[in-house]
Amino acid sequence: MKPVYAELLTIGDEILYGQIVDTNSQWMSVELDKVGIKVIRKTTVGDKEAEILTAFAEAEKRADIVLITGGLGPTSDDLTKPCIAKYFGCELVIHPEALEEVTAFFVSRGRELTETNRQQAALPTCCTKITNPVGTAPGMWFHIRGKVFMSMPGVPDEMKKMMREQVIPKLKETFPLPTILHKVIRTIGIGESMLSDRIQEWEKSLPSHLSLAYLPSLGEVKLRLTGIGSSASNLQAELEAWSDKLTPVISSYIYGYGEDTIEVVVGRMLREKRLTLSIAESCTGGYVSHLITSVPGSSEYFLGSMIPYAYEIKMRQLGVKPETLERYGAVSEPTISEMANIVRAKFNTDIGIATSGIAGPGGATPDKPVGTVWIGYSDRHQTVTRKLQLAKDRMINIQLASTAVLNLLRLHLPGGPRNSQ
Amino acid sequence: MKPVYAELLTIGDEILYGQIVDTNSQWMSVELDKVGIKVIRKTTVGDKEAEILTAFAEAEKRADIVLITGGLGPTSDDLTKPCIAKYFGCELVIHPEALEEVTAFFVSRGRELTETNRQQAALPTCCTKITNPVGTAPGMWFHIRGKVFMSMPGVPDEMKKMMREQVIPKLKETFPLPTILHKVIRTIGIGESMLSDRIQEWEKSLPSHLSLAYLPSLGEVKLRLTGIGSSASNLQAELEAWSDKLTPVISSYIYGYGEDTIEVVVGRMLREKRLTLSIAESCTGGYVSHLITSVPGSSEYFLGSMIPYAYEIKMRQLGVKPETLERYGAVSEPTISEMANIVRAKFNTDIGIATSGIAGPGGATPDKPVGTVWIGYSDRHQTVTRKLQLAKDRMINIQLASTAVLNLLRLHLPGGPRNSQ
Repeated sequence: MKPVYAELLTIGDEILYGQIVDTNSQWMSVELDKVGIKVIRKTTVGDKEAEILTAFAEAEKRADIVLITGGLGPTSDDLTKPCIAKYFGCELVIHPEALEEVTAFFVSRGRELTETNRQQAALPTCCTKITNPVGTAPGMWFHIRGKVFMSMPGVPDEMKKMMREQVIPKLKETFPLPTILHKVIRTIGIGESMLSDRIQEWEKSLPSHLSLAYLPSLGEVKLRLTGIGSSASNLQAELEAWSDKLTPVISSYIYGYGEDTIEVVVGRMLREKRLTLSIAESCTGGYVSHLITSVPGSSEYFLGSMIPYAYEIKMRQLGVKPETLERYGAVSEPTISEMANIVRAKFNTDIGIATSGIAGPGGATPDKPVGTVWIGYSDRHQTVTRKLQLAKDRMINIQLASTAVLNLLRLHLPGGPRNSQ
Repeated sequence: MKPVYAELLTIGDEILYGQIVDTNSQWMSVELDKVGIKVIRKTTVGDKEAEILTAFAEAEKRADIVLITGGLGPTSDDLTKPCIAKYFGCELVIHPEALEEVTAFFVSRGRELTETNRQQAALPTCCTKITNPVGTAPGMWFHIRGKVFMSMPGVPDEMKKMMREQVIPKLKETFPLPTILHKVIRTIGIGESMLSDRIQEWEKSLPSHLSLAYLPSLGEVKLRLTGIGSSASNLQAELEAWSDKLTPVISSYIYGYGEDTIEVVVGRMLREKRLTLSIAESCTGGYVSHLITSVPGSSEYFLGSMIPYAYEIKMRQLGVKPETLERYGAVSEPTISEMANIVRAKFNTDIGIATSGIAGPGGATPDKPVGTVWIGYSDRHQTVTRKLQLAKDRMINIQLASTAVLNLLRLHLPGGPRNSQ
C-alpha cells in the first residue's frame, strides 16, 4: 500500500511572531496518525499573498493532502480564501447555502449581519463547502489534480469539530490507508545512551514494519514503538509481544505505558494497595507534593506534607534530632533517614518519603557541591536512602530530585519492583 | 535598513506525529522579535535525510538566518549533524574541546562515557562549536555563503540557554539590526478587557513608533510596550516616561516589570523588609511553596510549610480547632483565617499565608462548587481573607489560587500597596 502523505499549513502572522502557540497542528498530527496518514511536514507562513501561494505550490508537490488552518476571518488581513481561489484559478461567489448558515448563525445570537459577515459566505466555485457548525467561516474542500486541499478555521474548537466529524471521514473515503499503531513504554532512572546500549539487540531484531523512537525528557526516556500494517488486531498483538520481550531487558526501569506519568503511576499503586503517604521535602520545596496532588483523587492516599526548609523548622517542627543535624548536617544520610521516618510517624501514614539537598545556586560546601541531594523512603519494615549528584541548575535539580524520590517510592513500596512484601 | 529574515526549522518525528508540542519555536519567535529579526517561516520535518536536506536548501533561499532545533541526540534516529555536514560538504571529526566538555559532563555525574556519548563530540569541520552548558550535545554555528545556520538541541532548557547567552549576541554582531526596545509591565488581579478599558486614553496617546501588546496568561496580563528607532538611549527614556505615565492609572495592579514574576517580587519585598514567611497550603498542594522556593536565595525569608491535605492533618498536625472544621468546614473563612494565623505562630515567622479550596474534579458540594477557594494572610497586626470563585479545571485552579495568595501577600505585607505599616 502506498503511504498517504499530508502537509499541515498554518497561516497567520500571530503564530509566526510567537503571539500565540500553534496547538492545532499537534492535535491534527495525532488524529491523522491514528488513521494512518503520515504528516511529512508542518509549515507556518504569515499573512502575505506571495508567501501563501508559494507554500501551496510546495505542499502540492510533496503531499497528497494539504490541511490548511487560519486566515479565514472576515477582516482584510485574512487571505486564505482569495489566495486559494487564485491558486486554483476559480472565482469567489456567494454560496447560497453558506449564506443561509451564516445568516442563521447571526440571527440565533441576535446579531446583525454586516456586509463583512456576508462575505464569509463567498466561496471559490471549485470547492466543496464544509459546514462549520460552531462558527461563521465554512471549510473548503478541494479535490483537484489528484490532491486534496482542505481549508479550515484556525479557532481550535471549530477546526477540531470539522476535522473529527467531516474531514477525517472524507479522507478515509478518498484515500486507501494503512493501519498505524503506537505503543509508548516509559522508563525512568536510566539515560538515553545507556538505555540505547542496553536494548541494542532487541532493537536490531525488530521487523522492518516496526520502528523505535527515543523521546527523552527531564529524568525519563520514553520509547515509542510504531507499527505499520493492514490488520489492526495483528499489529496490536505484535506491539504487545515486542514490548513484552523488552520487559526483562530493562525490567525495573519501565514504570508505565502510554500517557502514564510517574505521579499517576505511584498514585495508582498507592490506591490499589490502600496505602497512605506523607512527605517531608526540603530542597524540592513543595514540588514533590505538587506532583502528587496534581493527580485528581490524590486525597485518597496523600495525607499531607511538611516542608522544613529552615534548619530550625527541621528540628522544632518536624523533629529531626539536633545531634543528627549538628553532626552530619541537613544534607546527609542520617538526616534524610530520620526525615522519612519521622514524617511517616507524625502524619500516621504507611509510607513517608523525604528530600534534602543543595538545589543551588547557593548553599554549596567543598564536600557537598550544588546538586548533592539525598532522598529517602520509609515504611513499617524498611528505610531506604539514596544519594544523587544532579545538575548545576536549581529548577532542573528540583525536578530531577522530585521524580527520583517518586521513583524510589515506586520501587520500594510494598509489592513494588524492589520489595516483595 | 534591510530587514533580516529568519526561518525556524524543527527536526523530529515526535513533533511531526504530534507526540510532543513544539514550544521552542514560539519562544524563539518572541526572542527574535525582540531584537528585530523577522521570522518568515516555520518548518517542521521528520527524521529523514532527504526531507532534512531539502528543508535546508529551501530555507537557505528564503532566509538570512536558519535556526535549527532537534535531531542532536546520541541515537541513530538523530540525523541533524550528519545531514548538515553533508549539506555543507564537510567532515565530522571529534572536536577535542567538545570531547572534554562531554567527558566532564559525565564525570561530574559519576557516569561512564560510552562510545555513543563520545560521538556527541564529533562536529562538522566547517562549524563553530557553541558550548552547551546544561547538556551533552554542543550547538553548531555555520556562517557560509552569507547565511547563518545554527543548530541547537531540542531540549527546551538547553536551547533557551544557548539562544539567550550565545546565539542572540552572535546574531547581533553578524547582522545590522534596527533598535527595538521593549518594556514589559506586569499586572495581576485585573482582566484583559477591564484593563484595556481603563488604560484606553493612555494607549491612544502613544506616539506612532511605540506600540502596545496585551499578553494575557493564567492570572495575569502583561503589557508589552515596544519602541522602534535608531537611538537606544532615547528610546529607553521614552519607554520609561510612558510607563511612568501609566503607573497612576492602574497603580496597585502593577506588580513588576520585565522578567519579574510574582514569586520573585514578593521574595524581593520580604528580603528588603527582613520579613520571614511560612505557608499552610491545602488545595494548592505544594504549588505555592514550589513557586516561592523556585527563587534562588528564598531560604533567606521562607522558613517552611505545612500541607495539611487531609482533615485530620489540619486538626492534629497544623492545629486547626475541631469545632471550626466541624462547624464551618475546611473551605471557609474561619478555617483559612486560623490556618494563616496558626502556621505563622507555629513556624515563628512574621507572616503566614494559607489556601484551602476545592480544586476539583471531586469534592464539590451544592454550596461549594469546584473552584471555590479561600486564601488568607496573617501578620502581627492583621488577618486578611479572600474568597475566590475559580475555574472547573484542577491544574488551572491550583495555579490561579497560588498566584492569588502571593498577590494577597504582596498587597498586605508591611509596606505593601494596601498596608502603610
